[in-house]
Amino acid sequence: MLKVNDNYKKLPGSYLFSTIGKKVGAYAKENPDKEIIRLGIGDVTQPIAGAIIEAMHQAVDEMGQAETFHGYAPDLGYEFLRNAIVEHDYKARGCDISADEIFVSDGAKSDSANIQELFAKDSRIAVCDPVYPVYVDSNVMAGRAGTYDEKTGMWSNLIYMPCVMENDFVPEFPGETPDVIYLCLPNNPTGTTIPKAKLQEWVDYANRNGALIIYDGAYEAYISREDVAHSIYECDGARTCAIELKSFSKNAGFTGVRLGYAVVPKELMFDNISLHHMWARRHGTKYNGAPYIIQRAGEAVYSPAGKAQLKEQVAYYMRNAKVIYEGLKEAGYTVFGGVDAPYIWLKTPGKMTSWEFFDFLLEKANVVGTPGAGFGPSGEGYFRLTAFGSYENTRAALARIQAL
Amino acid sequence: MLKVNDNYKKLPGSYLFSTIGKKVGAYAKENPDKEIIRLGIGDVTQPIAGAIIEAMHQAVDEMGQAETFHGYAPDLGYEFLRNAIVEHDYKARGCDISADEIFVSDGAKSDSANIQELFAKDSRIAVCDPVYPVYVDSNVMAGRAGTYDEKTGMWSNLIYMPCVMENDFVPEFPGETPDVIYLCLPNNPTGTTIPKAKLQEWVDYANRNGALIIYDGAYEAYISREDVAHSIYECDGARTCAIELKSFSKNAGFTGVRLGYAVVPKELMFDNISLHHMWARRHGTKYNGAPYIIQRAGEAVYSPAGKAQLKEQVAYYMRNAKVIYEGLKEAGYTVFGGVDAPYIWLKTPGKMTSWEFFDFLLEKANVVGTPGAGFGPSGEGYFRLTAFGSYENTRAALARIQAL
Repeated sequence: MLKVNDNYKKLPGSYLFSTIGKKVGAYAKENPDKEIIRLGIGDVTQPIAGAIIEAMHQAVDEMGQAETFHGYAPDLGYEFLRNAIVEHDYKARGCDISADEIFVSDGAKSDSANIQELFAKDSRIAVCDPVYPVYVDSNVMAGRAGTYDEKTGMWSNLIYMPCVMENDFVPEFPGETPDVIYLCLPNNPTGTTIPKAKLQEWVDYANRNGALIIYDGAYEAYISREDVAHSIYECDGARTCAIELKSFSKNAGFTGVRLGYAVVPKELMFDNISLHHMWARRHGTKYNGAPYIIQRAGEAVYSPAGKAQLKEQVAYYMRNAKVIYEGLKEAGYTVFGGVDAPYIWLKTPGKMTSWEFFDFLLEKANVVGTPGAGFGPSGEGYFRLTAFGSYENTRAALARIQAL
Repeated sequence: MLKVNDNYKKLPGSYLFSTIGKKVGAYAKENPDKEIIRLGIGDVTQPIAGAIIEAMHQAVDEMGQAETFHGYAPDLGYEFLRNAIVEHDYKARGCDISADEIFVSDGAKSDSANIQELFAKDSRIAVCDPVYPVYVDSNVMAGRAGTYDEKTGMWSNLIYMPCVMENDFVPEFPGETPDVIYLCLPNNPTGTTIPKAKLQEWVDYANRNGALIIYDGAYEAYISREDVAHSIYECDGARTCAIELKSFSKNAGFTGVRLGYAVVPKELMFDNISLHHMWARRHGTKYNGAPYIIQRAGEAVYSPAGKAQLKEQVAYYMRNAKVIYEGLKEAGYTVFGGVDAPYIWLKTPGKMTSWEFFDFLLEKANVVGTPGAGFGPSGEGYFRLTAFGSYENTRAALARIQAL
């Protein structure tokens, strides 16, 4: 009789955004007249930029002709895309990354969920708290997180690095030495980040302790401050301790297009085995690459026209971030983030829990956000709003919140 | 110090098709004047059908307009696609499958590699021998296969079901009862299949023993015989013992477009937990869906124009299969498959091993095939050719082989 992977049984409830989706769906069904504004899941709303649309049309046409048809893609992704990534995301910033260290994927969610397959089962994992749930849940499913304590909301085998108001949302070196450290900077969900000098300290810490950093740079395009690193490879020594995950979802609106990449430097050796070799093996065995059409779309992100159009798109969302940040401040909220990231993180008012504030906002203002507690115990008492709505909706949402 | 998942260290060599790619690449580099014909990896060569190209152009345009832009897809995939699948692949064949039992994915390779995450670590896995390497390698990476014996080419914890000339390539119930049985029918690599009555015996066997069947139906479109099931759900009782994996790669030429789906019936309960629930959780946590544009392409596969065009495409490849089958027969080879599948499986001549024959064919005829031994120990002495080349290349390849 088949026995299942019973780590799944340990997972409480459903995936955070599935839960929110169901709650909002139920509310919408009961209140068909209410116009709900969604600033919750972090899905973008602006259409794909013209240069990218054009590239996709061309790629579609190529697929329709025998001479230009493309079947299975190369294991790591097409060279045209990997070369563009290296040129614009790394060489232009003085980072030493080569095209065969880039692994093109269908997005940073998949990569950040799959990367833990490379670790031994008893690896000690450190996560920021609050944190993007995928890092935790994927380790739970693999049996690496231990057991869940309903009371504290914590997993027995995870190392938590609280990021709260009191420490300016900057993770501190944990008391216990971890094997793997997940860092998402600029941060989801808090919208805050750390200066490059601080990131360098993390790189040094990892190298000193033989730890691996999984560096999620999905929000890199939103960095506005000069002293913030756009890639962890701007730090000395990162090639021997860090894997970087990148996404096209937020800089180019690819949430429904699906494209991302992982950088696995060849120096990354642990346990006498190359993580680059392991990840290549995983890619070759379990995955068949992103669609040709989508990889061409990714290439167009780096074309002069694409870059100009996307600069405007990012600016559009950052104007929303400002509207939210300032609107909440005016309404008397305590607010963080929104300067180097498309997320605004606020203290829930009074003694409301973050799920209470979720219900309150949904019912009273018909605005959907994300409860901080959904991202971990230290997220309790906080709430996330995203800048990815339309400008009109964002202004309308803030007007409603201010009127509460 | 991070320790890695050392199951990776147990894997011998590289992924089969990566190895072949490297060997052919090296040969091509040394012999730039030779015109190599590739009947190896099973990649298609015909362009995407017109109806699908049209649907993709339309979807690309939708993504370029705010009113019709699509961000994150629903967890299971878009309803328009899941409804089309149910209607044409199941209802039309009298199979009772509902749209919320369909999980759209980026292809059957990913699904067949990921599905093992649902099983307990000590589950006993039965595979046909020879077999599509992904089933084995993904279980090796998860630590479920035991250790590899260089001499026999077998994994200590896997249950092998030899499919050879002597048993007409029909798997027999194994001596030891497995928890999971992988069946690919029509079969890759042998190109053979079994009648529906025989498949019913497997369904009964699984239900009797509390085993799960992972049914890979990637080559279903190539079935020509009346008495062969197009879905395992044509068999009584399959809803309580089988997950079916399907691909758009071979029926619609989507190897570079990337689309597939898994069917996980809600009755599938093991260990008091619903596999449907588990797979939904996995999908929600680790994956963000196939691109909107690609899901629209999948929908067009089922349109009247799409169906007509793809019928021709399948016929085109099956004409190649006939060319290969008959050409090899005429040249004196012992040949199998090619009637309900796009693969032809042949006995290597004389006492050649299958890798020897690979080199022989590459060097003497500049034709690339796949050595049977790459699919498992019982594949030794056999060789696979695919019908996915162009008609002209296929004829040219056979002329070269006949001239050897």
